[in-house]
Amino acid sequence: MSSVEIYDSTLRDGAQAEGITYSLQDKLEIAQRLDDLGVHFIEGGWPNPTNPKDLAFFEQVRALNLRARVTAFGSTRRPANAAGEDATLNTLLKAGTDSVTLFGKSWDLHVTEVLKTTREENLRLIEDSVAYLVARGREVTFDAEHFFDGCAADAGYALETLRAAERGGARVLVLCDTNGGTLPGEVARMFRAAAGAVGAPLGIHTHNDAGLAVANTIAAVDLGAAQVQGTFNGYGERCGNVNLCTVIPVLELKMGRASIGREKLAQLMDFSRFLSETANVAHDHRQPFVGESAYAHKGGVHIDAMNKDPRCYEQEDPEATGNSRRYLVSDQSGGSTVVAKLGRFFPELSKKDPAVAEVLTEVKRLEHQGYQFEAAEGSFELLARRCMGLYRDRFRPLSFHVSSRKEAEGEPEVAEAVVKVEVNGRVHHTVGEGDGPVNAMDRALRKAVEAVFPDLKAVHLEDYKVRVMSSSDGTAARVRVLIESSDGHDVWGTVGVSENIIEASWIALADSLHCKLMREEGR
Amino acid sequence: MSSVEIYDSTLRDGAQAEGITYSLQDKLEIAQRLDDLGVHFIEGGWPNPTNPKDLAFFEQVRALNLRARVTAFGSTRRPANAAGEDATLNTLLKAGTDSVTLFGKSWDLHVTEVLKTTREENLRLIEDSVAYLVARGREVTFDAEHFFDGCAADAGYALETLRAAERGGARVLVLCDTNGGTLPGEVARMFRAAAGAVGAPLGIHTHNDAGLAVANTIAAVDLGAAQVQGTFNGYGERCGNVNLCTVIPVLELKMGRASIGREKLAQLMDFSRFLSETANVAHDHRQPFVGESAYAHKGGVHIDAMNKDPRCYEQEDPEATGNSRRYLVSDQSGGSTVVAKLGRFFPELSKKDPAVAEVLTEVKRLEHQGYQFEAAEGSFELLARRCMGLYRDRFRPLSFHVSSRKEAEGEPEVAEAVVKVEVNGRVHHTVGEGDGPVNAMDRALRKAVEAVFPDLKAVHLEDYKVRVMSSSDGTAARVRVLIESSDGHDVWGTVGVSENIIEASWIALADSLHCKLMREEGR
Repeated sequence: MSSVEIYDSTLRDGAQAEGITYSLQDKLEIAQRLDDLGVHFIEGGWPNPTNPKDLAFFEQVRALNLRARVTAFGSTRRPANAAGEDATLNTLLKAGTDSVTLFGKSWDLHVTEVLKTTREENLRLIEDSVAYLVARGREVTFDAEHFFDGCAADAGYALETLRAAERGGARVLVLCDTNGGTLPGEVARMFRAAAGAVGAPLGIHTHNDAGLAVANTIAAVDLGAAQVQGTFNGYGERCGNVNLCTVIPVLELKMGRASIGREKLAQLMDFSRFLSETANVAHDHRQPFVGESAYAHKGGVHIDAMNKDPRCYEQEDPEATGNSRRYLVSDQSGGSTVVAKLGRFFPELSKKDPAVAEVLTEVKRLEHQGYQFEAAEGSFELLARRCMGLYRDRFRPLSFHVSSRKEAEGEPEVAEAVVKVEVNGRVHHTVGEGDGPVNAMDRALRKAVEAVFPDLKAVHLEDYKVRVMSSSDGTAARVRVLIESSDGHDVWGTVGVSENIIEASWIALADSLHCKLMREEGR
Repeated sequence: MSSVEIYDSTLRDGAQAEGITYSLQDKLEIAQRLDDLGVHFIEGGWPNPTNPKDLAFFEQVRALNLRARVTAFGSTRRPANAAGEDATLNTLLKAGTDSVTLFGKSWDLHVTEVLKTTREENLRLIEDSVAYLVARGREVTFDAEHFFDGCAADAGYALETLRAAERGGARVLVLCDTNGGTLPGEVARMFRAAAGAVGAPLGIHTHNDAGLAVANTIAAVDLGAAQVQGTFNGYGERCGNVNLCTVIPVLELKMGRASIGREKLAQLMDFSRFLSETANVAHDHRQPFVGESAYAHKGGVHIDAMNKDPRCYEQEDPEATGNSRRYLVSDQSGGSTVVAKLGRFFPELSKKDPAVAEVLTEVKRLEHQGYQFEAAEGSFELLARRCMGLYRDRFRPLSFHVSSRKEAEGEPEVAEAVVKVEVNGRVHHTVGEGDGPVNAMDRALRKAVEAVFPDLKAVHLEDYKVRVMSSSDGTAARVRVLIESSDGHDVWGTVGVSENIIEASWIALADSLHCKLMREEGR
């Protein structure tokens, strides 16, 4: 079967997500990585006279010599302007790309209420805007905005807008579910209508407002769509665009359709995490195929069956998308979970090894105290290596004194931590100040160890969670602190439990740094 | 068209999500809220001899007198046992529910490789396990585990397992996409085959491993499925179950199918946030219909068009699911939610009352700082009464100094808090010691106020939760502390936000005591 073009809009539609902003440097890095991943089109942004950043991007991206086609995005001309005098079209030319994507209105509501023009004029401006760019050597993709809502309102007119773009010379006509509310059956019905009305290849662009973006995309591909537009991690306006991290594996693994190819597919999870880091948002661990939880098994019955045959509770091989199987250690899990988990770090380990029993005993002892390792793989791996004599603690936290003071109402709070840490036989006595006791303690601890272990400078806290274990005693109960750390490459979780939140944090913080040192040793 | 039964598995399948653990009290509260929301079935858990927590749930949930049918979940008998001697089946009976859900194997791989039995014996044990429970007065739902994978491998056999359950007397046969990897077209094809093979009503149970859980569910509903199984917020093993927060609005708003009804639908976002807080995980702001970003508009072109006609970039009315439109440039958030919330405490209040506007302004100011009132109704009620001049603070916390010290490895940690609190014009300067800084602060605060307000002696902390709001800065980010308190009669939540966990706890602790005093005054 024919392959499907992947058109990425991470840098344009994806940048319209709440909480996401990219610097010029971010955009160039993402473009390079997208190209490495093998996408066919990279929509770089919307160059317009008031947005110098996007014009600078198009200028600088040329130096990267990407294989992917970089495309500039913009609207058809304004009703009042001739194409040659339209600032938007001329700025699109200035971007200097071989490829341009123009969006036009396919829903009559938008024509009359937003553009405030006539239905006839809208058809003319679609046709001549496309033709103007084609005459100047551009390959034009036409995004039929709100095509499906337009079809529901007036199918005849929506199809006319496609014909106008085709007459203008557009290479591909992309049907957009801009509001993300169309059901798959409707997408299929309207896609068929479009295929019957025009001869140019069709593309599909969906949003996830009804949780149906992937289904709508593959419905169109099933009917012959040659191009899929979307964003990685599904970033985008409102609920986001269709997630290419989901669509690509579905195409490649389930539908037998080539897109970026199987070899690149194995880099998908790595790219997905890189993008989360660059966007500075938490990686969605529940994401299909590339989330950390996507192949994580917790139920005892599931784990037991997985040990018999991995097809039992896995839709696909996790390695195909660069992911891996995980067995979550929880209080419900028996010995088989711990053994399965150890196997990941020590594939050579026999189940009869006495070390396995020792680790098991230690896990049970700590779980009884309230430890939980399912979100703290770093602590689990440390525990195992310590039991087996494979990691010797490179530093030893000895004591702390944390103090938090607020002098009067309205005054800021001041937190200070004094710690003693032994590193290579020498006791470091350091002090740190912070936005709270944990932050202060983190700073004091780092002062003591970073001088000896400069690798630790790259480690930063990603998340910090606290949970009280027994709800009957309130604050006097045991407290579990979970910390997620990252060095910009790997992410790991560590856990600390104590009756005191400060001490629990202290344990989890120290383990976080130990974990980095342990992994550096292992390299 | 006929209505669709909503079968919720938040407390069972949902609890198998990575990072989620519920206490018994959490489970009871969630069950009560699910019932308020109008779901038809609440799957309470898997009672088994080694899991006393789930049996305790079934015992205590009876006292809530829920309208929803509470159901106990478990497997068919073991191949070696007669039904009457099977520990699983007998524990299911012990749960004492009217309704039981049994899952059985529909994929021959699981029969031979996991159960290690014959295909014939599997059919027998499905039939007689169902019959055993039906004979003892239970209404049985049969979950055909891996039905779709089973169909792909051997459709004839998968259909036989449904017939066996029907012969046993099951009320509904639920087709499960347990591994979450089936495409909608396949789901439709196999659903039709099932509908042709049995006479009992069919249900659908999907997982989101390929991002298709919603599409697969509605494909089945389109073909006549009478029951939808899922979890709220889509929590569940691996990538999660189908998200009922998405499916219910699609059914009600787009497919014209009644489920919980339009009136309850408007409470959906509130419930979704309550559940996130109880599970102590960040609320997914990109979730369709109930995410904070679902109707948040960022692109300038979009906002401009929205001002002309809200249909331009919204699939549905945000209010329908209790959400609200936001323009990210001007950061306008949810007035109607606040007004709806106020109505709960002051049913006599007119929406034009100037106090409403004042509360609204204050809520917005605090939400902007990171406050969230979904799981902190005590704080919300206090805020409203303070704004309206209906509660005057009976004490005023002035300052604190909290200190936590651990002298050496292995030594216990000592926490001490010194606080100043003004009560009736007099400053009380007290000190408390505790198992941690928050506990010490709680004790010092109580010393200062309990002498004057002896009612406060009955108040104790039930739960204490902490979340960091922005994960990008780790411990230096803002921290939200949620405290749940009880006087043995009522339970209430309060919230505090600060960059410092100690100060955030201080605010929430003080509000907890204020809330008790406010409610005593109101009696």
